[in-house]
Amino acid sequence: MSTVKRPENPEADPRVKAVFDDIRVTRKSDFINDFWNFLAFDPALLEETWFGVKAVMAQPSALDPLTKELIYIAVSITNSCRYCVHSHTAAARSKGMTDAMYADLLRVVATAGRTNQLLNGLQVPVDPVFEME
Amino acid sequence: MSTVKRPENPEADPRVKAVFDDIRVTRKSDFINDFWNFLAFDPALLEETWFGVKAVMAQPSALDPLTKELIYIAVSITNSCRYCVHSHTAAARSKGMTDAMYADLLRVVATAGRTNQLLNGLQVPVDPVFEME
Amino acid sequence: MSTVKRPENPEADPRVKAVFDDIRVTRKSDFINDFWNFLAFDPALLEETWFGVKAVMAQPSALDPLTKELIYIAVSITNSCRYCVHSHTAAARSKGMTDAMYADLLRVVATAGRTNQLLNGLQVPVDPVFEME
Amino acid sequence: MSTVKRPENPEADPRVKAVFDDIRVTRKSDFINDFWNFLAFDPALLEETWFGVKAVMAQPSALDPLTKELIYIAVSITNSCRYCVHSHTAAARSKGMTDAMYADLLRVVATAGRTNQLLNGLQVPVDPVFEME
Amino acid sequence: MSTVKRPENPEADPRVKAVFDDIRVTRKSDFINDFWNFLAFDPALLEETWFGVKAVMAQPSALDPLTKELIYIAVSITNSCRYCVHSHTAAARSKGMTDAMYADLLRVVATAGRTNQLLNGLQVPVDPVFEME
Amino acid sequence: MSTVKRPENPEADPRVKAVFDDIRVTRKSDFINDFWNFLAFDPALLEETWFGVKAVMAQPSALDPLTKELIYIAVSITNSCRYCVHSHTAAARSKGMTDAMYADLLRVVATAGRTNQLLNGLQVPVDPVFEME
Repeated sequence: MSTVKRPENPEADPRVKAVFDDIRVTRKSDFINDFWNFLAFDPALLEETWFGVKAVMAQPSALDPLTKELIYIAVSITNSCRYCVHSHTAAARSKGMTDAMYADLLRVVATAGRTNQLLNGLQVPVDPVFEME
Repeated sequence: MSTVKRPENPEADPRVKAVFDDIRVTRKSDFINDFWNFLAFDPALLEETWFGVKAVMAQPSALDPLTKELIYIAVSITNSCRYCVHSHTAAARSKGMTDAMYADLLRVVATAGRTNQLLNGLQVPVDPVFEME
Repeated sequence: MSTVKRPENPEADPRVKAVFDDIRVTRKSDFINDFWNFLAFDPALLEETWFGVKAVMAQPSALDPLTKELIYIAVSITNSCRYCVHSHTAAARSKGMTDAMYADLLRVVATAGRTNQLLNGLQVPVDPVFEME
Repeated sequence: MSTVKRPENPEADPRVKAVFDDIRVTRKSDFINDFWNFLAFDPALLEETWFGVKAVMAQPSALDPLTKELIYIAVSITNSCRYCVHSHTAAARSKGMTDAMYADLLRVVATAGRTNQLLNGLQVPVDPVFEME
Repeated sequence: MSTVKRPENPEADPRVKAVFDDIRVTRKSDFINDFWNFLAFDPALLEETWFGVKAVMAQPSALDPLTKELIYIAVSITNSCRYCVHSHTAAARSKGMTDAMYADLLRVVATAGRTNQLLNGLQVPVDPVFEME
Repeated sequence: MSTVKRPENPEADPRVKAVFDDIRVTRKSDFINDFWNFLAFDPALLEETWFGVKAVMAQPSALDPLTKELIYIAVSITNSCRYCVHSHTAAARSKGMTDAMYADLLRVVATAGRTNQLLNGLQVPVDPVFEME
């Protein structure tokens, strides 16, 4: 199913174990989803990916955690990334996304998909008032 | 610049005028941005597009108006729709998006773009726990 | 504006001249649009691209020439290829596409963009009845 | 497999039942494919999606029904929407698409994918003659 | 699983047999992967696809065979083409791609995905120094 | 032209100055291209983007610097990121990419775009031999 072998005992590598421990602490959960298990085939790539994602998604910032998950889902849908859609929809639900909010997210994502097509077709020049520079 | 001619006097058509009037009332502004001006080349397409967008973006729903604009921008960036990125970034600013929030939006969108690529490469099977059905 | 220099006198190269002559004969027109002029920076790439496109678009096949142009536009919009959208919209108009047909094309393309997003979000399993194998 | 639960008895909701009845009448078939069954998790989203798709795909317009299905497939392929590709290929076959036509569709879609990449790489400026405005 | 039936005995058709024989000779292997088996539903499409791919990927050119496979994977990931990602990752491994090289490929592809999103959001004008024309 | 204002004197901010100095040292050039100038509207986003890109592109790794640029261009073309295509084509040229290599890159990218479309259309199941897990 995958393009790399899932390492059999990834935490035998201390760099992997350190990342997995940090995932558990950050998420207050013992569960390590398979993205990280497979990514452990290259500990450096695992490290930079986890610490990069954590810095953006798990630390306080201008947008609240649930809004960030909704944005993440929107991009993942548009890029047709099946795993990402599933994992971030689950994350959003765990942060409070209701079915009504999910339906509304889909409604906005679908509307954007619709008008994106219209404008990539029409090739309307950008109104000068919209440009900051 | 465009694939259709911008109608010279679009509001001469009463269906177009009705849509433009509704845009002005809904937005409390006299400004009609060029998407609608060009779309007026086909009044039926203009009508269904405006009323579709309005129903999703301008009516109360489970997500607040600014969150919906952020999601709209995220999709438009991912679809590389230049006009849409500009018009919805302007709309988000008018609804309260600060530079700090915009930077955070870009940070999340870029992080999703990054992990979408990793997972479309790795093709990791979806963890059963993420599936609702 | 481009990532390669436009060759100053591309037809000085006999391979380029042969392709350009074939474009003129095939299209019954002296006009060479700039895709081919720029592509002449590499005569082999020019040859294989022109003869590939010609075999698909300029020879009789199961679909009629205008339908093929509409499909070409649909893909080009979705890939956000500005030049391709312009050149194939012009080609479709020259083969009989009216404004009403163009509006209908945009309507279908936008509807597909909309439901593609819904299904890439929902990840509904394919109904067995739809599968040929 | 999906990001929402498939409602167990969706037609218990009268709004869902009304949509499903309209699908059956429009298509002259009792079969409801799973897109609509899953979408029933939010009756409002179901309603606006079905009536939007029906208005474009099931009503007479400038393009004939089969051409519209071919365009729909082209967009769905380009957006990598697995479900959409399957459901609209089946719909196109039911409207008369032969294997030869399907092969020709794929040929055009693949050729567009090829030249879209060339032009998104070369970034050739649009010939002024192609612009309507 | 597919949108066409897998031909039961594709090599009964002499055009298919000729292509399959050429695949076997080119690759020095008896294995025909399923892309070609399914594509055999239309012998002309099979021919033009195989000879097109062979001309680019199996003949000496400015880039070495492994580099070409890495580029092929990068595009396939970005287009979310599951089959293509799998088949070309296998091809790259057979041409010498190690796990370390694959991790590095993913690292670059993910970084590009990240900055592509930033720039499609920021819409920074291209520095004149980057333009060739 | 952009969605943020280009900071007038970005290096007045010491965090921006530190990044710009590092760009100059890393690249052995005084030129700061506009991506970084505009990104300076948010110093934290500038820092994480530059150091992330530098770690991948400017440090020795399993793939050589030119191959990494070719891969970067391939992704940027596929995502239709105009600025990225220009800046990384320029970077690749500065690292030794000839016109012949660029033509070959385009040839591979275009071939992948072509077969990606075929396979996203055909939806051929992945041959078990290609799967690592």
